[in-house]
Amino acid sequence: MPLIEPYKGVRDFYPEDQRIQNHIFAAMRTAVESFGYEEMNASILESTDLYRSKTSEEIVNEQTYTFLDRGERSVTLRPEMTPTVARMVAAKRRELGMPLRLYSIQNFFRYERPQRGRLREFWQLNADLFGVAGVEADIEAIEVAYRVMKQLGAKDDMFTVRVNSRKLLYDLYEPIVTGERTIEHVFSLLDRKGKMSREEFEKVWEKDFGHPFTEAETAHSPRLQAVFDALRAKGIPIVFDPHIVRGFTYYTDLVFEVYDTNPENARSLFGGGRYDKLISQYGGEDTPAVGFAMGDVPARDFLETHNLLPHLHSTAMLYLAPVAEKDAEHASRLADSLREKGVNVALGMKHTKIGDHVKAAVKLGIRYFIAYGEEEQKSGTVTLKELSTQKEEKISLDNLASRLLS
Amino acid sequence: MPLIEPYKGVRDFYPEDQRIQNHIFAAMRTAVESFGYEEMNASILESTDLYRSKTSEEIVNEQTYTFLDRGERSVTLRPEMTPTVARMVAAKRRELGMPLRLYSIQNFFRYERPQRGRLREFWQLNADLFGVAGVEADIEAIEVAYRVMKQLGAKDDMFTVRVNSRKLLYDLYEPIVTGERTIEHVFSLLDRKGKMSREEFEKVWEKDFGHPFTEAETAHSPRLQAVFDALRAKGIPIVFDPHIVRGFTYYTDLVFEVYDTNPENARSLFGGGRYDKLISQYGGEDTPAVGFAMGDVPARDFLETHNLLPHLHSTAMLYLAPVAEKDAEHASRLADSLREKGVNVALGMKHTKIGDHVKAAVKLGIRYFIAYGEEEQKSGTVTLKELSTQKEEKISLDNLASRLLS
Repeated sequence: MPLIEPYKGVRDFYPEDQRIQNHIFAAMRTAVESFGYEEMNASILESTDLYRSKTSEEIVNEQTYTFLDRGERSVTLRPEMTPTVARMVAAKRRELGMPLRLYSIQNFFRYERPQRGRLREFWQLNADLFGVAGVEADIEAIEVAYRVMKQLGAKDDMFTVRVNSRKLLYDLYEPIVTGERTIEHVFSLLDRKGKMSREEFEKVWEKDFGHPFTEAETAHSPRLQAVFDALRAKGIPIVFDPHIVRGFTYYTDLVFEVYDTNPENARSLFGGGRYDKLISQYGGEDTPAVGFAMGDVPARDFLETHNLLPHLHSTAMLYLAPVAEKDAEHASRLADSLREKGVNVALGMKHTKIGDHVKAAVKLGIRYFIAYGEEEQKSGTVTLKELSTQKEEKISLDNLASRLLS
Repeated sequence: MPLIEPYKGVRDFYPEDQRIQNHIFAAMRTAVESFGYEEMNASILESTDLYRSKTSEEIVNEQTYTFLDRGERSVTLRPEMTPTVARMVAAKRRELGMPLRLYSIQNFFRYERPQRGRLREFWQLNADLFGVAGVEADIEAIEVAYRVMKQLGAKDDMFTVRVNSRKLLYDLYEPIVTGERTIEHVFSLLDRKGKMSREEFEKVWEKDFGHPFTEAETAHSPRLQAVFDALRAKGIPIVFDPHIVRGFTYYTDLVFEVYDTNPENARSLFGGGRYDKLISQYGGEDTPAVGFAMGDVPARDFLETHNLLPHLHSTAMLYLAPVAEKDAEHASRLADSLREKGVNVALGMKHTKIGDHVKAAVKLGIRYFIAYGEEEQKSGTVTLKELSTQKEEKISLDNLASRLLS
């Protein structure tokens, strides 16, 4: 029978790849939890109603996995987290304490043509703060995003945070757009900017809006200034970028994107913004909100581009191989006693040559190796081998656990 | 606009419920990782081919979420993990070290009529060991399952492990079944046993197989005896149960189930077994395998039945409330310095009365509270309040982080 492939556009996570995911997710968790964000989750399956006219139209109409269940209800695999979180906050607004800080690290589906960097399923950190209309929430959202980058090991010169305000854009352009050139046109043009050349963009912009779009004319928002002042005082590499709009139509004011500064990966890594109207659209009380989302694929690309991924061993610390079949029970008992002390032990079981056990341990990514036979049982001393360096040390069984946990 | 409900049969995890999930998942992780099991994952979306004739027929035909994607491919939301893991091991058999120990804590979908304890989406720990045909792998699978229970806080008298062998059943019954009473009939009858009364079961059994099914006639497998001897030597509460078969047809030999002993919840919590043929069915080399799966819902039911769920605070350790708006920046700076020392701090932001901040912190499940104003800034001393006990202590800012982390 032929091998069955994974479904096109999704990934299998063998332990090696899962270790990288876990490394990235642990950094995300540490950063957001330090600001008091608490984990939540919901089903990946949502009523399709949740997305109709709330999210980017492109995503809903062309990119969702939507189907009828056996009871003829239309359901959708969530393409993003914000509508789910907004629905949940709307449903329990009064029972939830404010400021409410929520995060999740979950998976999402979009039906796209699979290609490099574009998968049908991806994982994403979402962090959102509810109940605070003031600018201090905007500042915190960016600060948390910055802390995630730092926790991943990024230096300040490896990325910049580009910030803009959709409200400012609206206030500036709403009076001057006429006829077919609606304000939505402004946003959609800016959103598509990354897909055009600079010349192309400037040509279209000039044709439609008559004059070039410069920083000078848009830098006059006191609220944005407060964001800049506070974040710069904290040493966060923030720049004003009047072209940032973000694709989702629910953003109402602040929008930001974190950009990689490395020329080989000079692109937006992730972003977020303020969405003050969404929760009331889902039937809840008016609740201001600001948040961001960061995908696992851009995060991994960033780490690889900047050589920030450490060597990741297996969570199994020690491969313990019985020298012969008769040593299996003794080895199992030693393994149990090490586990009680907090050492993760993988027991060799194939009763094969020690060399084959070593090969297996290397394939498994396990750091340390011990062969355990009659001699070791008698002497109470084992040879601990570090597989990557081939270094060996004699160590007594009494000291083994503390040595491995050090 | 009316509130949008979650999709029927799935759950929303607000932080309170997510804390319980995380508590259960952490125990599962600690237990399986101590035996060297390493995390893996794959997409929840699989080609429907993966399930055809491999899993329980009832699940594939009646209980999966299966639909056509925009490219007319038939895809299925995975109803269980074993086919996915087997597919992955089949694809990379030679690159993977053996014994290969894999685990995942992921979600699954079954289209069932939602009712108490039966949801359409559930989370499940899967732990599997590949490459070992010998009985020591059977022993380890049960030992790991036992350690998960212990890590969850269970005492030995709260559960039993019921063990059987499908191979033994086959060897005993294959010679005596004739005509319509096939060997599959034996398995299917045993599988449905839980849904009948004892009398009903015994009547059908006697009608079809002529004589009662007793422990005596089935306890003659040396392999099963080895399992009992090894596990009893380790003090694991194991019993022989000739009626255990498990629903999945891929099991080949050992099968086991962990039962709650509390009369109020006297049911199977989870189980597993040996499935030595599945990987070669997916096109891989012949690879022996044994494993088990434990769902989040039975785990939570067990913990609640036995009163084993501890009080779980928010991961945010401290709610820090600025006394007045002018104290916000100072409070933010104090929060940053506590975060650097590893304290998770949620900053109060609504600039409201202290009493309202306290109420919010209580709703958020945060353990400690500090109001931070001019007095605190001048004196360098704050009042740390434990919200559940109302206990207060004066503490200097220098000692605050270490006090909170103790």
